Amino acid sequence: MKKFDCVAIAGVGLIGGSVGLALRARGLARSVVGFGSRPATLATAHERGAISEIGADLASAVSHAELVVVCAPVAEIVEQVRQVARHCRPGTLITDAGSTKVDIVKQLEQAALDDSAWGREVRFVGSHPLAGNEKKGPKHADGELFSGRLVVVTPTAATRPTDVRTIAEFWRALGATVLEMPAGEHDRALAATSHLPHLIAAGIAGSTPEEFIALTASGWQDTTRIAGGDPALWRQIMLANRDNLLEALDRFAQHLTEWRAALVAGDGAELERLLTEAKRIRDRAGS
Amino acid sequence: MKKFDCVAIAGVGLIGGSVGLALRARGLARSVVGFGSRPATLATAHERGAISEIGADLASAVSHAELVVVCAPVAEIVEQVRQVARHCRPGTLITDAGSTKVDIVKQLEQAALDDSAWGREVRFVGSHPLAGNEKKGPKHADGELFSGRLVVVTPTAATRPTDVRTIAEFWRALGATVLEMPAGEHDRALAATSHLPHLIAAGIAGSTPEEFIALTASGWQDTTRIAGGDPALWRQIMLANRDNLLEALDRFAQHLTEWRAALVAGDGAELERLLTEAKRIRDRAGS
Repeated sequence: MKKFDCVAIAGVGLIGGSVGLALRARGLARSVVGFGSRPATLATAHERGAISEIGADLASAVSHAELVVVCAPVAEIVEQVRQVARHCRPGTLITDAGSTKVDIVKQLEQAALDDSAWGREVRFVGSHPLAGNEKKGPKHADGELFSGRLVVVTPTAATRPTDVRTIAEFWRALGATVLEMPAGEHDRALAATSHLPHLIAAGIAGSTPEEFIALTASGWQDTTRIAGGDPALWRQIMLANRDNLLEALDRFAQHLTEWRAALVAGDGAELERLLTEAKRIRDRAGS
Repeated sequence: MKKFDCVAIAGVGLIGGSVGLALRARGLARSVVGFGSRPATLATAHERGAISEIGADLASAVSHAELVVVCAPVAEIVEQVRQVARHCRPGTLITDAGSTKVDIVKQLEQAALDDSAWGREVRFVGSHPLAGNEKKGPKHADGELFSGRLVVVTPTAATRPTDVRTIAEFWRALGATVLEMPAGEHDRALAATSHLPHLIAAGIAGSTPEEFIALTASGWQDTTRIAGGDPALWRQIMLANRDNLLEALDRFAQHLTEWRAALVAGDGAELERLLTEAKRIRDRAGS
């Protein structure tokens, strides 16, 4: 990948901070400018070396950037990208790290047409690094967070192939494997592989009678780990991918009726069949 | 704890092998005799130092033991304990490591009355170390498996207090914290904290469309990890605790209807309330 003179990161929490650490540790950008609404977060990111400069405001932070990575909560991404587009110079490429893609990509395609200040030479390509965890904030940032992880890039019919290539190379340079797919396909898949598991993990935690908490062990802890994630962020993700999540939830609930019937009937063979099928799929996915 | 001259372990897989390693590493038993139906498993346990001797048959393996730990699959525990009771000498104490307790404890109390060969001087106290994981076999055994973990001991009205004390001291000597409770209370709690999470983890894995597996990440992997466990063992556990598990499953399904309603209504505040409540309980339980 060609080295960037300047990359700007909007939102320097776990993901944004890790992007900065990875860029700087690998010498991929001469300067990394961070900006965001919380001075303490920016200060921590700077102390940890995730950013080389703190932008005084959004306009100055992005004014020299060739690439801007917007790592805001899902519900804030569209507005942030619009503001970035208003203030960066022609030729700047913008990407994000949001867990849902359809709403963001569609709204930004429309914004590029509507916003008179959005130069035609500013382009957005949606990204989703599958690399978060239940932690938050720049103190947990990790320059190897993307190593060996998957990043989905979601071009549209209007996206220039050279821009997709640049964004894909960017994530690969950070250690990730990149998969290109339409935003709709991404959102359907992630509803099943990320958003439903989050809802279910929270459902297990939330419905465990508190008097039994002392009797939890590693099985409960693994199964519910992601329920420790930030409620405000997950509320946004669930709402942004609501239809797909409802479909995944109903498929799961339908599947549970098979388990229930096997239990009610005391049907050991059927229980073992369900357990074996689940183990086969689980074992395919790796640890 | 007083040091044992001889402890016998029936079933030297993950749990039995770990008991042996822990006893020997801590110098708590002069000899540890293992026995079981698979010569290869016994050989591995012996090579790893989990047992000092391989019993030629059950009768000779237990004939000198002061304590016998039965680490068989749940459905085989009652029969194994009955056989042990027939062959060990008066004064021998027997415990198990089964994940369910009511059936085992009840059937063994009845057996002690029925079995003419079951001397009154042979006593059983039920145990459940909350220390398994999705791995199996003596190659994964670990002498520190019980360190800092919980072991539930389930005496009945007929159990002698000195026997409960001996068994509790035994697990504590292996590094565990011991909790005494009635078998019924144990089974109700474990249905919610272990057996339901297993069913749900398997349900998530089993209902994930296979074309989406490539898009799983750490959230899915954590949530479904225990679905990689042994189907034959889990079939037995689920059947042995069927009524409590059905109750926990129905409580969970009822709880899911709240999530579904919030999603359908697009009610972000309610979603955040559910997520926050789940996080509160999750955070209480530790990592």
